[in-house]
Amino acid sequence: MIIQMKKTATKKEFERIVEFLTSKGLRIVDASSENVTVFGILGDTSSIEPADLYAFDGVGEVTRVSTPFKKASRSFKKKDTIIKVNEHVSIGGDQFVVMAGPCSVESEEQLRTIAKGVKKSGAHLLRGGAYKPRTSPYAFQGLEIEGLKILRKIGDETGLAIVTEIPSADLLPVFEEYVDIIQVGARNMQNFHLLKALGKSKKPILLKRGLSSTIEEWLMSAEYIMAGGNENVILCERGIRTFEKYTRNTLDISAVLAVKELSHLPVIIDPSHAAGRWNMIEKLSLASLAVGAHGLIVEVHHDPEHALSDGAQSLKLNKFHHMMEELDKVAAVLEKTIR
Amino acid sequence: MIIQMKKTATKKEFERIVEFLTSKGLRIVDASSENVTVFGILGDTSSIEPADLYAFDGVGEVTRVSTPFKKASRSFKKKDTIIKVNEHVSIGGDQFVVMAGPCSVESEEQLRTIAKGVKKSGAHLLRGGAYKPRTSPYAFQGLEIEGLKILRKIGDETGLAIVTEIPSADLLPVFEEYVDIIQVGARNMQNFHLLKALGKSKKPILLKRGLSSTIEEWLMSAEYIMAGGNENVILCERGIRTFEKYTRNTLDISAVLAVKELSHLPVIIDPSHAAGRWNMIEKLSLASLAVGAHGLIVEVHHDPEHALSDGAQSLKLNKFHHMMEELDKVAAVLEKTIR
Amino acid sequence: MIIQMKKTATKKEFERIVEFLTSKGLRIVDASSENVTVFGILGDTSSIEPADLYAFDGVGEVTRVSTPFKKASRSFKKKDTIIKVNEHVSIGGDQFVVMAGPCSVESEEQLRTIAKGVKKSGAHLLRGGAYKPRTSPYAFQGLEIEGLKILRKIGDETGLAIVTEIPSADLLPVFEEYVDIIQVGARNMQNFHLLKALGKSKKPILLKRGLSSTIEEWLMSAEYIMAGGNENVILCERGIRTFEKYTRNTLDISAVLAVKELSHLPVIIDPSHAAGRWNMIEKLSLASLAVGAHGLIVEVHHDPEHALSDGAQSLKLNKFHHMMEELDKVAAVLEKTIR
Amino acid sequence: MIIQMKKTATKKEFERIVEFLTSKGLRIVDASSENVTVFGILGDTSSIEPADLYAFDGVGEVTRVSTPFKKASRSFKKKDTIIKVNEHVSIGGDQFVVMAGPCSVESEEQLRTIAKGVKKSGAHLLRGGAYKPRTSPYAFQGLEIEGLKILRKIGDETGLAIVTEIPSADLLPVFEEYVDIIQVGARNMQNFHLLKALGKSKKPILLKRGLSSTIEEWLMSAEYIMAGGNENVILCERGIRTFEKYTRNTLDISAVLAVKELSHLPVIIDPSHAAGRWNMIEKLSLASLAVGAHGLIVEVHHDPEHALSDGAQSLKLNKFHHMMEELDKVAAVLEKTIR
Repeated sequence: MIIQMKKTATKKEFERIVEFLTSKGLRIVDASSENVTVFGILGDTSSIEPADLYAFDGVGEVTRVSTPFKKASRSFKKKDTIIKVNEHVSIGGDQFVVMAGPCSVESEEQLRTIAKGVKKSGAHLLRGGAYKPRTSPYAFQGLEIEGLKILRKIGDETGLAIVTEIPSADLLPVFEEYVDIIQVGARNMQNFHLLKALGKSKKPILLKRGLSSTIEEWLMSAEYIMAGGNENVILCERGIRTFEKYTRNTLDISAVLAVKELSHLPVIIDPSHAAGRWNMIEKLSLASLAVGAHGLIVEVHHDPEHALSDGAQSLKLNKFHHMMEELDKVAAVLEKTIR
Repeated sequence: MIIQMKKTATKKEFERIVEFLTSKGLRIVDASSENVTVFGILGDTSSIEPADLYAFDGVGEVTRVSTPFKKASRSFKKKDTIIKVNEHVSIGGDQFVVMAGPCSVESEEQLRTIAKGVKKSGAHLLRGGAYKPRTSPYAFQGLEIEGLKILRKIGDETGLAIVTEIPSADLLPVFEEYVDIIQVGARNMQNFHLLKALGKSKKPILLKRGLSSTIEEWLMSAEYIMAGGNENVILCERGIRTFEKYTRNTLDISAVLAVKELSHLPVIIDPSHAAGRWNMIEKLSLASLAVGAHGLIVEVHHDPEHALSDGAQSLKLNKFHHMMEELDKVAAVLEKTIR
Repeated sequence: MIIQMKKTATKKEFERIVEFLTSKGLRIVDASSENVTVFGILGDTSSIEPADLYAFDGVGEVTRVSTPFKKASRSFKKKDTIIKVNEHVSIGGDQFVVMAGPCSVESEEQLRTIAKGVKKSGAHLLRGGAYKPRTSPYAFQGLEIEGLKILRKIGDETGLAIVTEIPSADLLPVFEEYVDIIQVGARNMQNFHLLKALGKSKKPILLKRGLSSTIEEWLMSAEYIMAGGNENVILCERGIRTFEKYTRNTLDISAVLAVKELSHLPVIIDPSHAAGRWNMIEKLSLASLAVGAHGLIVEVHHDPEHALSDGAQSLKLNKFHHMMEELDKVAAVLEKTIR
Repeated sequence: MIIQMKKTATKKEFERIVEFLTSKGLRIVDASSENVTVFGILGDTSSIEPADLYAFDGVGEVTRVSTPFKKASRSFKKKDTIIKVNEHVSIGGDQFVVMAGPCSVESEEQLRTIAKGVKKSGAHLLRGGAYKPRTSPYAFQGLEIEGLKILRKIGDETGLAIVTEIPSADLLPVFEEYVDIIQVGARNMQNFHLLKALGKSKKPILLKRGLSSTIEEWLMSAEYIMAGGNENVILCERGIRTFEKYTRNTLDISAVLAVKELSHLPVIIDPSHAAGRWNMIEKLSLASLAVGAHGLIVEVHHDPEHALSDGAQSLKLNKFHHMMEELDKVAAVLEKTIR
C-alpha cells in the first residue's frame, strides 16, 4: 500500500498515521521528496481497507499495490486449479465443459426430455433451477425441494452431473445430498453469510459474478469460500449491468482473461443470462471458447414458449445440437476437447 | 402490456401467442394497421414477465404499460405512508428524521459516547452495525449478538430508537427482540429468502437500494416484504455504482423524486455510503432535505481515525452538530421539522 | 507517479524503465523492500500517460499521485475564480446565478415571451439553442444564424446576457459577435479541436460535462481551454449515463463538491437535461443550491406542448416563478443571493 | 409509437394530444379498455422524439415500436452491405479484414517497419494516427498533415490501404486526398457537424462507437452520414465505459450481433482500445472472429516501450504474427477467409 499525504498535511498528521500503521505491525518505507510526502507500507495489509485510512487528516491518496485476495490469487498458486466433477468431467483444464438445461425444473417429464436431448448433443452437466430468485413475488418461484429430487433422479438416469442454485445457507444440507455442483446466484455473490456456510462444504461451488461486481470483488467472494476451507470454486461470468439495454446485460468477455491472469480458478461463461436472447447464444458460446473460458452454462428447453421462466433466452434442442457441432469444430483447432 | 409482432411474423405465430395469453385469462385488444400487427393485453399481467414472451416466434417488442408492483405503488395507495417509530419519531411525514451513529458497534463505551453526542445534536435514531458485511473475509466482521445487546442498552439509556442491519433470515427472532427498525443492506436487496422472512415481521424495515438496482427493482423488493404482510417499509437511497470513481458511489438524488411519484412509501438518504468521504456529508445532507427526502442515515464517530470500519466516511461529533444546525435553518423555510 | 514492478520482473526490465524515465528528465526515488520493487517518479509528469508505461515489460502497477490538470487545479490557484458576465451578474461567488430559456429558439415572439417571463421572475441570463445537436438527422436542427440574431436582439431588449451552444470551431467568429457566454455541449466535451479554438477566445465558456466523462476528464477539457489562454471556464454538471432509466440521466450532485475541492472554477447544474422531466426541476434546483453549486441552467417554455424540442423537460413560466420564490427562501438562510 | 395516458388524464388532455398528432399527418388507432386509455400512432414518426410527447399533460408512457433509423436499418435493406476498399479487400462479406499499425505515426521509418511487418503477417489495411485526440493538452498531439503524407507514402509502397482518424470537418479535403478509409473517433461519434460533412464524401467511413453510446445512437450516427448521401459506413465496436476498471473499457462483444440484426452495415472490433492491455488482444481477436465480426483494427508497434502513445495496448510484430496464424486456423473452420 502506498500513501501520499496532502500538500497541506502537517508533520503531526504524518506522525499520527505512521504511528497507527506501525502499531498494526506494519513497516514504513519513505519515498518523499522536497514537495511530496509519500511512503510505502510493508507487511500483511489484507485486514486494512484503503478507504479507512482517509479518516486520518492529511492523507491524500491511498493506493493498494497488492491484490486483497490470497488463496484465490495466481501468486498464491501458479498452476491452474482443475476441479474433478466425476470420472468424465473436469473443469479448469483442456476440456471445454458444457452445462445445459432449463431455467426452471417444471416436471419430471420436462426435465427428462431436455436432459436426454442435451446429453445426446454432448452436454456434460445438467442445469435447472429448483429455487428461483424472481424479481416479482408474484412470479413462479420454483418446485423447491421437489425440484431437487427430480434433478437427482434425472441426473442418475442420464449420467449427467447436476448443478443448481442455492437460495440460502439453511438449505445447505439438502443441497449437499442432491446436488453435484452448488451454484451461487449473481444476486447472492456478496451474501457473505451464505459464502461462509459454503466454505464448510466439500462440494464444488459455481460462483456467479454479481451484476455490478468488479472482478476484484468477485475474487474476494471466492476468497470467502476458500478462506473457510473449500477451494473448489468455479467462477462464472454472466453479464454485467451497463447503460446498454439491447441485451439484458453486457457480457464482459474480457473478464475471462482478467480472471485467468489474477487467479488460478476455472472460469466459465453463461451467455443465456448475459444476452437474454436465444438467437445470440451460439455465437457468444463460440466466442467464449475462443477467448479461453473453461466452459459454458446455457439454458435449453424443448418448448421455450411454454417455459415457466426465461423462455426468451432458452435454446431449442435442435439449436443446441447445432451449437455443439460448431463448438466441436472450433475446439479442434484450439486444442480443446469437448467430447 | 403491448405486443408488437415482427414484420416477418406469420398469421400462425400471431395466433399462437394470442392463444397462450387468452389461456391465462387475459384479453386482447387489437390495434393493428395495414403494416403493423400490434395489440394490447388487458387483465392482471403481474405474473407475466415481458421478457418471457420473446420466446414466441414472431414477437417483436413487448412493452409493459403498468407498474409491476402493486402494494408499493402510488396508484394502490394515494396517501403517503407514515411509519411511527415511537412517540417522538414518525417517518414519512413532515418530520425530517435523522439516524446517526458509528459504522460498527465497537464497544459499550464507544457507542455511549457517540449516542450521547448525536442525541444532544438532535438525532432521532441511533444506527450502528453489529453484523458487518465486509468485502474481505479477513476484515472485522462486527460484534454480532454482543453488538445487538449494546445497541439495545444504549438505546434505552438515551431514549434513541435503534436501527441496524440483519445479515440473514435465521437471525430474525434476535433482531425482533433487540432492534426497532431492521435494516436490509444494499447487497441483500434481492436476497428474496430474507425479504420473504421480513414480510412476516411487524418491525419497520429500512430497505437500502442495491448498488446497481433500478428504482423498479427496488420497489419490487419492497413489494416482496409487503406481499408477506409487512407494509412498514422505509426506502433508503445510498448511491449507485457508475463509472465515476471520485466518490465511492454516485448519490442518485433524483431517485427520491422518482420514489415519491411511484410509491407512497417514505424514502431517506444515506450520504455516508454514497460519497465515502466525510467532507461531503453536510452538503449532501442539505441537498437531501431540499430535494424532499424524509430523512437521513449518517455515520458519526467520536474518533474516526481509529474506527474499525469506514472511518473515512464518518463525521466527527462537532461536524455532525454543525450539520444539524444547518439542516435546522433550511428545514425552517421548507416547512419541515427536525426537532 | 509511483511504479510497482511485477514480482517476476527482472533487473534488466527495471533498468529499462528507469533509463526511459531519467531520459525524460525525471528523478527516481526507490521505496523497494525485500519482496517488492516500487519507486516514485519526481518531476513534471504531465506529459506521461500512466497507461503508456505498461508497455514496458515487468511493470506491474502505475499510480498517478498528482492531478493531471494544472491551471484548472485548486493547488494552482487557491481562491475561487469569479467570472464577471456583466454589471449585475458574476458567476463563482455568493450570487446564485440562474440561466433560463427555451431548449430551442423557435421565433422572435416565442423568445420574447419567455425572456420577459423569466426576467420578471428573476433569471440572470437567457439560454436558447440556435444550433441543436439532435440524435436524429430528421429532427429539427435549430434556426442557426437566424437564432443567434434573435437571441442577441431579445437579450438587448430585456437586458439579459445570452448563453448558447456552439456546434463547431469554424463558427467561433459569429458566436463571439452575438453571444455573451459560449456553451460547449456534453457531446463536444472532448472535441479537442473545438476546445483549442475556444482557448483563443476571450468569452466565458460554459463547459458541460460529457455523458460518461469522469470528473478528471472534465477538468482536463477545461485545461485544454485554459492552456490556450482563456481562463474563464464555467463547469456545468448535467447528468451522467448510468443503468437507471427512470430519469433521462443521473444527476451527479456530488460532482459539484468534487469540482470545488479539485478546482477553483465555478460549477453550475443543469437539472433539465439531467432529469428529462419537468416535474423534478424545482426540487433538483433547490438541492443544487443547497449542495453549493454556483448556479443553474434550466429550460423554460411558455407552451411546452408545442415546443420543437425537449418540451418534456421544460418548466412553464408559472412553475419557474414558483421555483424562483422557493430558491429565494433557501438562499436567504444559506447566505447566498439570488436577486 | 404507442401512447398510454395516465389514469388521472382527462378527456380534454386526451383530445389535445390526439389533435397535435393528427395535425402532423399521423393517424390514431385506439386500443383502450375500461381502465386504460392507450392508442397507437401510425405514419412516419421519425421526426417525433418520444420524450417530447411527455410535455402534454396526461401522457403516461410513450413507447417507440419502430427503429428511429431508416437507411441504416435491416428492414430498409435486407442484404449485407459489402464495401469494396480495393481489388483485394472488401468489408462486410466472408473476408475477415485486419487493419493494423501503430497508435500514432511517429516517423517514416517507424511506419515503414511496422507496415512491412503487418503486411507480411497478412494485414489488409494500415492504421496509424496523424491527428491524435489526447485527454491532456500537454501530451503528443500527432504529426498532423505530415503524418497523413507518411501514411500515403507507406501505403503506396506496401500496397496497404490506409485508415486514419479525422479530427474536424474542415480537414475533409485533405483526408479525401490522402486516405482510403476515414475514421470517426469514439469521442466524435455525436459530432453531428462532422457527420454531416462526411455524408457529402464518397470515401468509406469507419464509425467508432462512443464510450457510452447505445447501439441505437450509434446507428443514428451512421444514419446522419447515410442521410447525407454516403452509404459506405463501417461500424466499429471499441469498448464501452462501465464500472469495471481492470480493462480500460468493457468490450461489448454482443453489440456485433445486435448490429447485424438491426442493420445491414459491416461491423468490426477494436480490441486494443477496448482492453488497453496488449496481452488480451489475441484472445479477444479470436473471440471477435468467432462471434461474427467482419474484421479487426489492432495496434501494432515494433517497439511499444518507446511508442509516443498507447504503447501498453500495442502488440509487438511477432505477437501479431502469432495472432494472425491463430485467426487463420479458426477462420478455416468457420468458412471465413483471411488471406
